[in-house]
Amino acid sequence: MASPAASGEAEPPVLPALLLFRRRLDATFHAALRRRYRLLDFFASGEPLPAFLAGAAASLDPPRAAGVVGGGAVRVDAAFLDAVPSLGFVFSTGAGVDHIDLHECERRGVAVANSGTVYSSDVADHAVGMLIDVLRRVSAAERFVRSGLWPVQGDYPLGNKLGGKRVGIIGLGNIGSLIAKRLQAFGCVIYYNSRRPRDSVPYKYFLNVHDLASESDVLVVACALNKDTRHIVNKDVLEALGKDGIIINIGRGANVDEMELVRALKVGRIAGAGLDVFENEPKVPAEFFSMDNVVMTHHVAVFTSESRSDLRDTTIGNLEDFFSGKPLLTLVLPWS
Amino acid sequence: MASPAASGEAEPPVLPALLLFRRRLDATFHAALRRRYRLLDFFASGEPLPAFLAGAAASLDPPRAAGVVGGGAVRVDAAFLDAVPSLGFVFSTGAGVDHIDLHECERRGVAVANSGTVYSSDVADHAVGMLIDVLRRVSAAERFVRSGLWPVQGDYPLGNKLGGKRVGIIGLGNIGSLIAKRLQAFGCVIYYNSRRPRDSVPYKYFLNVHDLASESDVLVVACALNKDTRHIVNKDVLEALGKDGIIINIGRGANVDEMELVRALKVGRIAGAGLDVFENEPKVPAEFFSMDNVVMTHHVAVFTSESRSDLRDTTIGNLEDFFSGKPLLTLVLPWS
Repeated sequence: MASPAASGEAEPPVLPALLLFRRRLDATFHAALRRRYRLLDFFASGEPLPAFLAGAAASLDPPRAAGVVGGGAVRVDAAFLDAVPSLGFVFSTGAGVDHIDLHECERRGVAVANSGTVYSSDVADHAVGMLIDVLRRVSAAERFVRSGLWPVQGDYPLGNKLGGKRVGIIGLGNIGSLIAKRLQAFGCVIYYNSRRPRDSVPYKYFLNVHDLASESDVLVVACALNKDTRHIVNKDVLEALGKDGIIINIGRGANVDEMELVRALKVGRIAGAGLDVFENEPKVPAEFFSMDNVVMTHHVAVFTSESRSDLRDTTIGNLEDFFSGKPLLTLVLPWS
Repeated sequence: MASPAASGEAEPPVLPALLLFRRRLDATFHAALRRRYRLLDFFASGEPLPAFLAGAAASLDPPRAAGVVGGGAVRVDAAFLDAVPSLGFVFSTGAGVDHIDLHECERRGVAVANSGTVYSSDVADHAVGMLIDVLRRVSAAERFVRSGLWPVQGDYPLGNKLGGKRVGIIGLGNIGSLIAKRLQAFGCVIYYNSRRPRDSVPYKYFLNVHDLASESDVLVVACALNKDTRHIVNKDVLEALGKDGIIINIGRGANVDEMELVRALKVGRIAGAGLDVFENEPKVPAEFFSMDNVVMTHHVAVFTSESRSDLRDTTIGNLEDFFSGKPLLTLVLPWS
């Protein structure tokens, strides 16, 4: 006897609607979502956001349930949530949720989950790599060698040793903790600042970032972006860090006052910087381009094929849990 | 009563002669040596080596005792030792002693010391930095950002995760061990090859480099250069490493068959390379200049201001020990 599927008589399964706000999705990820959900793809629609959301909300089966949002090009704010009252869950494909108004979500009972720790070790690796690069002048040496200068120009400024450096980490969450663990293996001394001291760590805690900077050779920005951490590295903090100090930012561009950072580097008020994030991405201050003591990457600290496949699993896991009423894997909201 | 020095009547102290073969020496280091020794500086002399050595040997106080040699521009071989029979000690300012004929030194009772572990942690740091750079495409991203491509070109190849990678280390001496310790903190699996298995390490030992390469995602060359390790990474080893494999070389350029490495990278037989050393320094094969998956630095893995000052202490410590008949700090020869 033919199975219902083979007989062609079965109804096609009704897939739940999923609002999708992600500009680029690899083919495997896209296929995995398409098999499970009816995708309402904002960037593919070409519509302005209000029209797109209104259309989705007016459909027979409105996205009563789930959205996938990432990248920060679209903000999930009150207006967004008002437009799609059926929404009960927002998943961020990034670790950061600064593009989601958590307060508005909580007020409406919309659950929020994020990519959890999928990216943590990659971001920590990237931070350490950039720190070694800045201290040891790897990218600068790269340019020196590729331009053919080695055989013709002997002198080259010395780098600095990583061992023994006092590294102040702003934000000792998953990523910050993994950075600390790695840098301990290099013989660094770890200090940190975060909202509150952590019980289980042996590192010295600083109540404020200014004092942390005064005592540190290196500042690593590894905190989330919110109103308290916007420009947490400002002019005063840069001054406290001092002329031999180095900034590494793998958090968000706006954690650092970029204009002040440019100034501090220009006049040698700090020694160097490793930056994966910028205040107005993809725009990068042109002043950096001529600085040999700055290492820049284009927000790729999470960018590995391994983390991409882990993200796929985490995304689908959270969505399936939401649709089947199970507890979410990597819940951000509600705070309970 | 005036002291003898102040009275101007004392003989100036007779400083022991020191043959110096180092092209560049920072002012502090030079002054520290000059205070203690009568420097016979080969590169400052402008003489050909045989004439310089003959002149030194014919002086009233021939360098009966010590030489400082580094950099590899001058080889301490039988002819060198024959020319200065007064010599009893050769100090290498590098970790490598491939520019010193250890056999000829031993045969004549000439002691050899080197920079010991002064550079080990810096070289290990540099190796790890280059590995992260190659895997995560840091220098390539740097070029991408600096050329202003970020705002205009969206797609960019993904990097690869460091965690979980099987790293095969060739040579588990001071430097290799420090590389292993660091990479363990990143979640790498450590394998190694060396002349004989080490008792005290938990890493899997491979009797030959070919088998090590077959089982590894990354090969790190951290061995000394001698006749057994010349081209220890050859065509077969590169093939065994395979198309996703990465080579890091912080040993000596000639540990790797460079022509075969160029070929393997060109056709994608391996995935990438991080190279601090080259076979014919300062010449670098021009083919590398157009490869985005190669990270090159100009033999600067030891190049920090901290190691420079440690080297000064180690050099003077060894020389003073030799001249006062004490056991040498970082003896290479005699093997006892």
